[in-house]
Amino acid sequence: MFEQSTICAIATSPGMGAIATIRLSGEKAQEIADSVFQSPKADKKLANQNPNTLHFGSISDGDELIDEVVVAIFRAPHSFTGEDVVEITCHGSVYIQQRILQLLITKGARMAMPGEFTQRAFLNGKMDLSQAEAVADLIASTNRAAQKVAINQMRGGFSSELTNLRGELLHFIAMIELELDFSEEEVEFADRDQLKKLVSKIEVILRNLKNSFQLGNVIKNGIPVAIIGDTNVGKSTLLNALLNEEKAIVSDIHGTTRDVIEDVVNIHGTAFRFFDTAGIRETTDEIETLGIERSYNKLDLATVVILVVDTQNGIEVINERITKIRERINGQYLIIAANKVDRGRAETVAKLKEIQLLSNEKLVFIAAKQRTNLDQLISEMQQAVSLDSISEDAVIVTNIRHFEALTRAHESIERVQLGLDNLISGDFLAQDIRECLHYLGEITGEISNDEILGHIFKNFCIGK
Amino acid sequence: MFEQSTICAIATSPGMGAIATIRLSGEKAQEIADSVFQSPKADKKLANQNPNTLHFGSISDGDELIDEVVVAIFRAPHSFTGEDVVEITCHGSVYIQQRILQLLITKGARMAMPGEFTQRAFLNGKMDLSQAEAVADLIASTNRAAQKVAINQMRGGFSSELTNLRGELLHFIAMIELELDFSEEEVEFADRDQLKKLVSKIEVILRNLKNSFQLGNVIKNGIPVAIIGDTNVGKSTLLNALLNEEKAIVSDIHGTTRDVIEDVVNIHGTAFRFFDTAGIRETTDEIETLGIERSYNKLDLATVVILVVDTQNGIEVINERITKIRERINGQYLIIAANKVDRGRAETVAKLKEIQLLSNEKLVFIAAKQRTNLDQLISEMQQAVSLDSISEDAVIVTNIRHFEALTRAHESIERVQLGLDNLISGDFLAQDIRECLHYLGEITGEISNDEILGHIFKNFCIGK
Repeated sequence: MFEQSTICAIATSPGMGAIATIRLSGEKAQEIADSVFQSPKADKKLANQNPNTLHFGSISDGDELIDEVVVAIFRAPHSFTGEDVVEITCHGSVYIQQRILQLLITKGARMAMPGEFTQRAFLNGKMDLSQAEAVADLIASTNRAAQKVAINQMRGGFSSELTNLRGELLHFIAMIELELDFSEEEVEFADRDQLKKLVSKIEVILRNLKNSFQLGNVIKNGIPVAIIGDTNVGKSTLLNALLNEEKAIVSDIHGTTRDVIEDVVNIHGTAFRFFDTAGIRETTDEIETLGIERSYNKLDLATVVILVVDTQNGIEVINERITKIRERINGQYLIIAANKVDRGRAETVAKLKEIQLLSNEKLVFIAAKQRTNLDQLISEMQQAVSLDSISEDAVIVTNIRHFEALTRAHESIERVQLGLDNLISGDFLAQDIRECLHYLGEITGEISNDEILGHIFKNFCIGK
Repeated sequence: MFEQSTICAIATSPGMGAIATIRLSGEKAQEIADSVFQSPKADKKLANQNPNTLHFGSISDGDELIDEVVVAIFRAPHSFTGEDVVEITCHGSVYIQQRILQLLITKGARMAMPGEFTQRAFLNGKMDLSQAEAVADLIASTNRAAQKVAINQMRGGFSSELTNLRGELLHFIAMIELELDFSEEEVEFADRDQLKKLVSKIEVILRNLKNSFQLGNVIKNGIPVAIIGDTNVGKSTLLNALLNEEKAIVSDIHGTTRDVIEDVVNIHGTAFRFFDTAGIRETTDEIETLGIERSYNKLDLATVVILVVDTQNGIEVINERITKIRERINGQYLIIAANKVDRGRAETVAKLKEIQLLSNEKLVFIAAKQRTNLDQLISEMQQAVSLDSISEDAVIVTNIRHFEALTRAHESIERVQLGLDNLISGDFLAQDIRECLHYLGEITGEISNDEILGHIFKNFCIGK
């Protein structure tokens, strides 16, 4: 059962700001707010006010004035959670935020758990599960593509497609189960040709959705980039130059499963994830180095591989490196960054220009230290995954839970297809269709349990 | 002239949160918001809505949907700034916040400067200057006393007193200046006895306000505490134990003028500022140390001095330390922390207990490592400045600008007093009264200039 207590949390970013918002949701939201809120006007209980209105006043703990605030009132079912909601906007002192929160708890609210406001929105039918998950993705979005996909999912682009498919499948399974009831009479309520068409359509849709996860994952987590090359060719300088391209959103991600440090940076609207950057950084100080061999280990994780070569070297060395990396990579997008072009050997540069012209190699001349031609390199990197081509209503799977459910649903529908081709009996068909329905329902939350919900919402931030 | 452009800024704490609020203020606030906001209802321009109402909808950049938002409308003069204000509450992704801000700027708003919303509130007569300054203090408040004083000042407790005094003085100066116009006739419009009474009253009020700054400064910045003692008596352990008492609000303040690191911590509602904590921390690793001599340099900056002694030492050593520190301190509140009481020498502890009973020394037995009796020590520290006694409507000066203006106003009023006693002529009296009026007016902003305003508001955060 869904607990009906009134919950509260700070909904804005933690820390000091000009203002901060504390959110209360539940049956007693107004009552609790009224017990601490004083309006300058006479007889102005929040419970008597119109919904979707704002009210200036003050919050006091008994006689002690805590702050002057603006209170927003939303009333069930027309609120984010579908319950009565009161949002208190106070001055953004951390102390004041905490005081008001404590006061609300004293008056009968309880601290919300992570994602509990969104969970209530889901449980109250304001959104389905994939939309609820999109709220978290939207909040976490750090680039245009991620924001685009998340808001599309939040507005139901994903769910409506799945809900339609489920509806059609449900119709068929009802027919097939009717057949089973009349099995002795050998009737066929479910037209097998129509069912084949539908199943084939569903198979294509699920396959496409499943396949979109590769792109979706890149959008959500950034395009994985490996920078490799010999010692002293300028890998570290290049990495730092790229990381500084747009200083705002650089973060170190400490990998939990793998022992690597990743830098994610948002360059011109696309997130790139440079991994094992600790390794790159180390090499600047290292006299002894495992060199290029070491870097090969990370190739499989990358979508983009940047091979840095030093134009001060002879063309033979460089050619050998290119050949070697070509042998090792497996579908990755390879860019050759011919570095130190400002002081490169003339004959090496000339030869590389020939390669650039005559072969299909993506080769960019750069001088990382002077930041020369970095834009060209970045533009090449962006070609690897063309995010701009994502249409406004493209349905792209970014969530690994959805990917897993889709994979299983796809397996079931393939079995249905095979069964239809082999004219297997209705009860086996029905079993596989039910399985497909189950997995599709898991995505939108039509089928869910406390464990799934708990797992999903615990990764939300508190206040959402 | 006051610039009338429409300004915008993120008003909530920077960083990711569940939600974030972007504030727009100025003549075109509604028009700019309407150019990017779409309501699900037909013909629902924000400009046509009632003030103090909330509206769900979406923000788009052309065809590109950026976010679903709730928009709050406030209309001049009934808003924080006194202008038309629109607040857009979006999902708290940093990317989305930035996108919306950029979009508003594209549509004709400009980025607000620090404190510009509050500055406009002042310029539009919504609050006086000392109230505007209290807004910044309120946002920065990290403890109960600071919040209490700031909100009292914001609600005008401070200004109303000064405004009343100014009013009374203005009446007298008008009379005196009238006398000067009729100087040949030797009339006395301004009753000298009444003036003496008023000036004497003002002198007392200004003196009290001026003197309240010492307490005010402590409230605003925390009670300065110096922990001193020999090497290895447990200073560092004690400091860490105190800093961990309430983990939430510990911050390192890197002194800009002095080369010391300060730790501010909010313990049971009172802010303490431990200074030269770097020095204390160093000593744990130091073999050679300058010992207690070094600590004496910081004594003058402290309100509370904690002398840590080791009960494992003989009483003679400890007595010598106490005597020495007594010679050096100058009005500071001295607490002796007799540390390592869990393994102290029996005779030393016995002697110290005698001292505790028979002398006026504030002596607390602690075991810092085991956190034994820390509460008692903290309670002693809080005695030093009794913040709880501050009444709800106490007028306490916390702002150094106010303190300086009050000091000068007090000097002027003392000259007026002296002048009245010496029966000096009206034009000299008038000059000193005018000076007093000037300084009082500077506090509330009745007298101000761009330089003063610029200086005050540049220390605000952006968005307020």
